[in-house]
Amino acid sequence: MSSASCIFCKIIKGEIPSFKLIETPLSFAFLDIQPLSEGHILVIPKHHGAKLHNIPDENLADILPVIKKLTKVLKLDENDTPEGTGYNVLQNNGRIAHQEVDHVHFHLIPKVDPKTGLGVGWPAQATDFDKLGKLHKELIEKLEKL
Amino acid sequence: MSSASCIFCKIIKGEIPSFKLIETPLSFAFLDIQPLSEGHILVIPKHHGAKLHNIPDENLADILPVIKKLTKVLKLDENDTPEGTGYNVLQNNGRIAHQEVDHVHFHLIPKVDPKTGLGVGWPAQATDFDKLGKLHKELIEKLEKL
Ligand SMILES: [Zn+2]
Ligand SMILES: [Zn+2]
Repeated sequence: MSSASCIFCKIIKGEIPSFKLIETPLSFAFLDIQPLSEGHILVIPKHHGAKLHNIPDENLADILPVIKKLTKVLKLDENDTPEGTGYNVLQNNGRIAHQEVDHVHFHLIPKVDPKTGLGVGWPAQATDFDKLGKLHKELIEKLEKL
Repeated sequence: MSSASCIFCKIIKGEIPSFKLIETPLSFAFLDIQPLSEGHILVIPKHHGAKLHNIPDENLADILPVIKKLTKVLKLDENDTPEGTGYNVLQNNGRIAHQEVDHVHFHLIPKVDPKTGLGVGWPAQATDFDKLGKLHKELIEKLEKL
């Protein structure tokens, strides 16, 4: 399933050139041409869908093993300590969450210094066990109805 | 495979309580107790490993379908337009990339207003086709040797 006007569907079909790295029956990986850091890669499902919840499970299941393979050619698996080489895996859904192209894409972004790569803002809320307990109960009830 | 001192391995084994939502043979999902926004959930592989490249493919393949299920109970699949409900999926590797617990965890973070949820900093670099072309060639050569 593809969308005629979608730039990422055109990249998958080869109608727009890309720096392709990996193609599987379900996924397609290529260099981001406006990288946040050197080696910034996009991995996309071949099934067109704007947000993660629109993508079939079999396509979703294929994505992270592809990202894992890419960490190795980027040598992100070297210096394998907490203080060693870093990277972020990010997938944004909706304009408010910083999504720009409406075809699901996972960013693999090396983080080698504080100035390049993904900037992470973390406005953590204080732990409120009452609130968490109520939310948990609500979500468990909804899960049982899925 | 688990690590005796790992807080997330203890949560999986039930040695530390959690607001558990979904458990599969390969994955475990629970509420983050210091949420960035209401409904912030962590999904972790049951296999202990600090960074994504340390996790077996079969565990990785199980993660995103679990996240998809959770988007539905959080109603993140409603208002299904670019300007509608937003969310981010994030997985951090290494201290420099904002990882705090050394057991791989995927954050599902609803984004309903600019002040809560994940803060995304995006220091995009200008497109440099020469540089990208060289990197692409290098990575293709490494992929062929994997
Ligand atoms: Zn598309
Ligand atoms: Zn662990």
